[in-house]
Amino acid sequence: MTVSRITSHDVAREAQVSQATVSRALRGDPQISAATIERVTAASERLGYVPSSVGRSLSRRATGQIAVVTELGNLTYPDTIPAMHDELHNRGYGMLLISEHPTRDSDHAILFDGSVDGVILTTSHQNSELPARLQKRNIPFVFLNRTTRGIEADSVTADNAGGARSIAQLLLGDGHTNIAMLAGPSDLSSAADRERGFTTALRKDGIEALMRPVVRGDLTYEAGRLGWAQLVSMRNRPTAVFCSADAVAIGLLNAIAEQGERAHRPAVIGFDNSPISGWPVFSLTTVDTHLAEMARLASALLVERIEQLSHGIIPPVRRLLVPTTVVLRTSHVPA
Amino acid sequence: MTVSRITSHDVAREAQVSQATVSRALRGDPQISAATIERVTAASERLGYVPSSVGRSLSRRATGQIAVVTELGNLTYPDTIPAMHDELHNRGYGMLLISEHPTRDSDHAILFDGSVDGVILTTSHQNSELPARLQKRNIPFVFLNRTTRGIEADSVTADNAGGARSIAQLLLGDGHTNIAMLAGPSDLSSAADRERGFTTALRKDGIEALMRPVVRGDLTYEAGRLGWAQLVSMRNRPTAVFCSADAVAIGLLNAIAEQGERAHRPAVIGFDNSPISGWPVFSLTTVDTHLAEMARLASALLVERIEQLSHGIIPPVRRLLVPTTVVLRTSHVPA
Repeated sequence: MTVSRITSHDVAREAQVSQATVSRALRGDPQISAATIERVTAASERLGYVPSSVGRSLSRRATGQIAVVTELGNLTYPDTIPAMHDELHNRGYGMLLISEHPTRDSDHAILFDGSVDGVILTTSHQNSELPARLQKRNIPFVFLNRTTRGIEADSVTADNAGGARSIAQLLLGDGHTNIAMLAGPSDLSSAADRERGFTTALRKDGIEALMRPVVRGDLTYEAGRLGWAQLVSMRNRPTAVFCSADAVAIGLLNAIAEQGERAHRPAVIGFDNSPISGWPVFSLTTVDTHLAEMARLASALLVERIEQLSHGIIPPVRRLLVPTTVVLRTSHVPA
Repeated sequence: MTVSRITSHDVAREAQVSQATVSRALRGDPQISAATIERVTAASERLGYVPSSVGRSLSRRATGQIAVVTELGNLTYPDTIPAMHDELHNRGYGMLLISEHPTRDSDHAILFDGSVDGVILTTSHQNSELPARLQKRNIPFVFLNRTTRGIEADSVTADNAGGARSIAQLLLGDGHTNIAMLAGPSDLSSAADRERGFTTALRKDGIEALMRPVVRGDLTYEAGRLGWAQLVSMRNRPTAVFCSADAVAIGLLNAIAEQGERAHRPAVIGFDNSPISGWPVFSLTTVDTHLAEMARLASALLVERIEQLSHGIIPPVRRLLVPTTVVLRTSHVPA
């Protein structure tokens, strides 16, 4: 590995500021004026200075790096990555992606060895151990989209129950009386909130004899295919199916397409407003959780916490609940 | 940040090995026996030892981390991430994902400041500057899927020209005489090779009066939608369309679906065999590039280079060309 011979001393001399100001300016510290940041950046570019993250770690216990723990196979998440990347970049932080692997923990070492200043958790289960481990070590983190029971921490979540309630009202208004749900695992807070919002609204507003079978599975394409196999085998086949995620609804629509003309398609509704839901072959009615905006908010919450802690302030826990929006396309009309 | 007070000295004493053996064992060095690795791992777990990547960097200039530069919005790449992750993990390396941002370079600092031992490049253009910068600094890297002109470096690429030639033969065999291509940007080596293989085969094997309009665009869903708009406006509308990537073919099929019953669908063929190409609503005939296997090979090449360099050996440049396979589904039959 080559190490640059230009140091922050050289940059400080060139920009006529202190060495401490150089490192703060290059991290985009909000307390440094824009003019100074510009002068320091220009000087460091003129000299070809590359800040060493190793030096940063030892001198200030601040790495300028935020880890994002995510599931890269999940169709919903790719959109959030650029949003976090840009928000963190604008605030002077780099982003490391930690790809979640369900069966092993060892890759999480980088979260604990001083390589990052904070963590954004996007894949927490109700029984995840990671949040408690981070908390025990005083490593700042924020929950994005899903939370873990019993952990007091900053979080940004969608109003999943409210979105699901709106869908129940839409389907009841359309006259459906036999409405199935393809629900997600009950240990995911987001899926559990969608199920609770939906079934509560059906129970409250629905007629007494309403059918409401719940089929439980993962939040995946494959679960949607399996769900359709279960629905077609029912004696009273539902006329409407609410899926706990767009991926599930898209698996369901593909299973129906595979059956060809013989299949009578029920009303199908998803949740997430993922890019694929808008493709004309699906035209999926769904619920927008504004996930990119949520990702930006989570990044901002985390950086604010890190910077307050670095000034000796312990900020109160903040929990943001972001409203959802129903996106009406055509799949909620049976075909 | 909390820093563990347990050091590798404590682990060495507990496991009754030297301190050097502790770090090598915890990195999974293949020259340390499995029994020793197990003893050291058990001792470090008993003591709650977390190896510090900061300490590692300073003492050995080896971080145990590989950076992968990728485009996260690209539908083709998500599959390669677990493959690289697992291959690197098995060889004792962690993976950092660097999300490529077309308009800015600053996030690449982590590639140059000693934070990583090597780099896997998945997004290189013909005019990318990054490969030359890595080479100048003697940072080991490997090209995956795409290469950059004039740079001598390890690479793993698909036989893109061969795959495209097979598609030309398939379409000619089916009797098509007016065949369009939705080609990709000419500064991507993979797209250029597909175009060259296809047009060369049509010229060589095709009848004289063959029509072969080429519409150029990005390798995206949106480019497929735009491509269809151009094709339908042609006086002699092509009866077959070869798309330079599955994403383009899927955009095209969606544009056709949006037109509804009025549209007569040409034969449509993609390239990549991405998971979505197999969805029944598309049933896309395509070319499998075995990208996950390519990603594994690229990871292995890079680690072998890094380890040989650490023993003072400069290995020769290796260029692997991986054969492609045509995947026949139903979209190559006009409907």
